[in-house]
Amino acid sequence: MAKEVVKPSILPGFMELLPSDQILFNHMMDTIKSNYERFGFLPIDTPVIEKSEVLLAKGGGETEKQVYRFTKGDTDLSLRFDLTVPLARYVSQHYSDLNFPFKRYQIGKVYRGERNQKGRFREFYQCDIDIIGNQKLDIINDAEIPSIIYSTFKELGFDSFTIKINNRKILNGFFQYLDIDDSVEVLRAIDKMDKIGLKGVNEELKEIGLGYNTIDKIIEFIQIEGTNEEILHSLEELDIDNETFVLGLDELRNVVKYVKHFGVPEDNLKVDLTIARGLDYYTGTVYETFLDEYPSIGSICSGGRYDDLAGYYTKQKLPGVGISIGLTRLFYQLREANIIDTKLHNLTKVLIIPMEGCQEEGIKIGNILRSHDINTQIYLEGGKVGKKFNYADKLDIPYVIIIGSEEIKNEKVALRQMDSGEQVMYSIEELIKIIKND
Amino acid sequence: MAKEVVKPSILPGFMELLPSDQILFNHMMDTIKSNYERFGFLPIDTPVIEKSEVLLAKGGGETEKQVYRFTKGDTDLSLRFDLTVPLARYVSQHYSDLNFPFKRYQIGKVYRGERNQKGRFREFYQCDIDIIGNQKLDIINDAEIPSIIYSTFKELGFDSFTIKINNRKILNGFFQYLDIDDSVEVLRAIDKMDKIGLKGVNEELKEIGLGYNTIDKIIEFIQIEGTNEEILHSLEELDIDNETFVLGLDELRNVVKYVKHFGVPEDNLKVDLTIARGLDYYTGTVYETFLDEYPSIGSICSGGRYDDLAGYYTKQKLPGVGISIGLTRLFYQLREANIIDTKLHNLTKVLIIPMEGCQEEGIKIGNILRSHDINTQIYLEGGKVGKKFNYADKLDIPYVIIIGSEEIKNEKVALRQMDSGEQVMYSIEELIKIIKND
Repeated sequence: MAKEVVKPSILPGFMELLPSDQILFNHMMDTIKSNYERFGFLPIDTPVIEKSEVLLAKGGGETEKQVYRFTKGDTDLSLRFDLTVPLARYVSQHYSDLNFPFKRYQIGKVYRGERNQKGRFREFYQCDIDIIGNQKLDIINDAEIPSIIYSTFKELGFDSFTIKINNRKILNGFFQYLDIDDSVEVLRAIDKMDKIGLKGVNEELKEIGLGYNTIDKIIEFIQIEGTNEEILHSLEELDIDNETFVLGLDELRNVVKYVKHFGVPEDNLKVDLTIARGLDYYTGTVYETFLDEYPSIGSICSGGRYDDLAGYYTKQKLPGVGISIGLTRLFYQLREANIIDTKLHNLTKVLIIPMEGCQEEGIKIGNILRSHDINTQIYLEGGKVGKKFNYADKLDIPYVIIIGSEEIKNEKVALRQMDSGEQVMYSIEELIKIIKND
Repeated sequence: MAKEVVKPSILPGFMELLPSDQILFNHMMDTIKSNYERFGFLPIDTPVIEKSEVLLAKGGGETEKQVYRFTKGDTDLSLRFDLTVPLARYVSQHYSDLNFPFKRYQIGKVYRGERNQKGRFREFYQCDIDIIGNQKLDIINDAEIPSIIYSTFKELGFDSFTIKINNRKILNGFFQYLDIDDSVEVLRAIDKMDKIGLKGVNEELKEIGLGYNTIDKIIEFIQIEGTNEEILHSLEELDIDNETFVLGLDELRNVVKYVKHFGVPEDNLKVDLTIARGLDYYTGTVYETFLDEYPSIGSICSGGRYDDLAGYYTKQKLPGVGISIGLTRLFYQLREANIIDTKLHNLTKVLIIPMEGCQEEGIKIGNILRSHDINTQIYLEGGKVGKKFNYADKLDIPYVIIIGSEEIKNEKVALRQMDSGEQVMYSIEELIKIIKND
């Protein structure tokens, strides 16, 4: 009787990797994590499922439509759609147990029922850091963030990338100065600059209904270019008498100054007045990061400063600054563009192939290698030796040790280096030295 | 106008930790992961949400009632309730891209809408390994598993724990020999031995409706005790002429023999004929692991051998052997029993406290320490020095560096070791040496 079989498949918009890719993915995640820890961020891990009432307290917007929301019993539940709302809830809930400034990182999956589209994911990893102050938070923190982005992407193997930086207060102050009412709409238009170009932004500003004079001033403003110093200088020269603008310019000047002390090269940090992050809740410094040679990938790390993290949960004023790396999308894009260094990693260093009847010796040598922290697999199945070498090859295991009765008699084993094909007899001590020195 | 505030809270049955506990939790997870990798297991990461049709292909049972199941659009979705069903789906789906034996580990959250109860979690981490063979899998793999349990729990800091081992074929063969029809019911009764005792098992067997003679034989059987060798010998002496029994006994004898070669001490591995894992799909070797001094915690790691992993998804016969550690529950229990080594870990090694106007110097020293892989936070906020020391104290940061104008002039900084309170002036080079050697 043939058994009924369900076709094994996963949902569209979910990423699932083969182990060889998963190793690369995890390696990127570990690199991000160790960089976050190097700057003093501590881990938290919030539930994937939360009460809808809590998670959607802010309500409205495009995001809410995408939320995976359902009931279990009579509880209204939602899957988290980012790590920022859970952070706001966490800090409010555990306020009295936390030490401020609270530097936390969280790496975890979030869920958005996005329209099905290539390169868009419904389940994806976010890797977030935030520094939360109690009532206030020094502007130097805004300068530390780019240094974390810099060290992280450097260690991820990227050389040419640019952290673009701006300050929302400069934009908002400028719009106030121009007597624009709905600055959010204008922010959104400007934010599209790298996608729709100057002409496109112009069109959008017209649609908003701004006067030609105002539009000209905005266009002129976002075209201010030069070195960071030159841009700061040009902004001063505008001599705009608006408190918010002046405050924002002062903040930006401070951030640019301190970023240098944090050791970020000029080449990697660029003031860019078109960076607005229109859809977000940022109130000061904003960041976006681009790979110079792959601008089409878009921003690979972004974030900013906000005045009040958790107004929906607490009356405590909790300002903060943070960034997020969308790792799933980044990994997907890098793989599509064929720019992941696949030579990076093999987890298993040694495959031991014991000949018929030599399993015990194989196991003992495995014990010894593992006690020296060498990741070792023993091939315990029967079959031809060629097939077993092929197995090592396919799994990218760099060393194969063959153990036969001859080897046992001579207290030596044969070590084959898989890349060169070279096979030499060694004692166990020699073996360990060679593998450890690799 | 007072703003409406939503009370920040999470759902019952979900674990959320403060950073100090999260560090300990993550450290346990990392230890488990590195042990799995040391034995040649490779990572996979399957989606948390899958099609209900796929995830519930097996259907029925207690588990299905607990599943978080819902629709989005017109898709019937479920959250994974373990990592074994996703593994079966994964191996079937990617069959032609995998290399067998396929050794994979997966560490991730799973979801069960359990009844709300202390120590029971609705979201919890499972840390699983499985070795999957293509059509067949050598019995020596069953002997490797206890050595992985052994090395993992050793490294987690446990000294006295016992891996209890049995073989389902021995039990099933024995029941066949006794002409028992419903062996599953009997397995379940026996499996409760450590909870309800011999008398309780006796009662349960009566309820099943077995004859007194049969019950006596079962009771006598599960009371077989002694060293592993003695138990194996007693089982042979029974001289039971049943094919399944004989096969099971042979497997168990082999496993006990090879486990020794894998270096697991006799004290840590014990044949126990009451280990049945009644509710599961195991067909051969079964494992459970107990902390000798905390038996009430129950099994902290269990698993076994199965003939056919993925019969619901593929016609390929995929036998395997694996184990699972329920980390969330384990961590909870260890914390309740106050037996977590909290001295284990601080992530951040240094807090730099720059005096007023010395921030630049503080940042530069931070850069240097981080370039030597020393996790360093700079305290950038204003306020009294005492408060800043208190911050280091609360976060368990072992070193504080104070930088004032005097220090800058002398090209030395003050290093305070927080545990002793000792404070000495050092050059940067000396500093690095001291912290690195810690």
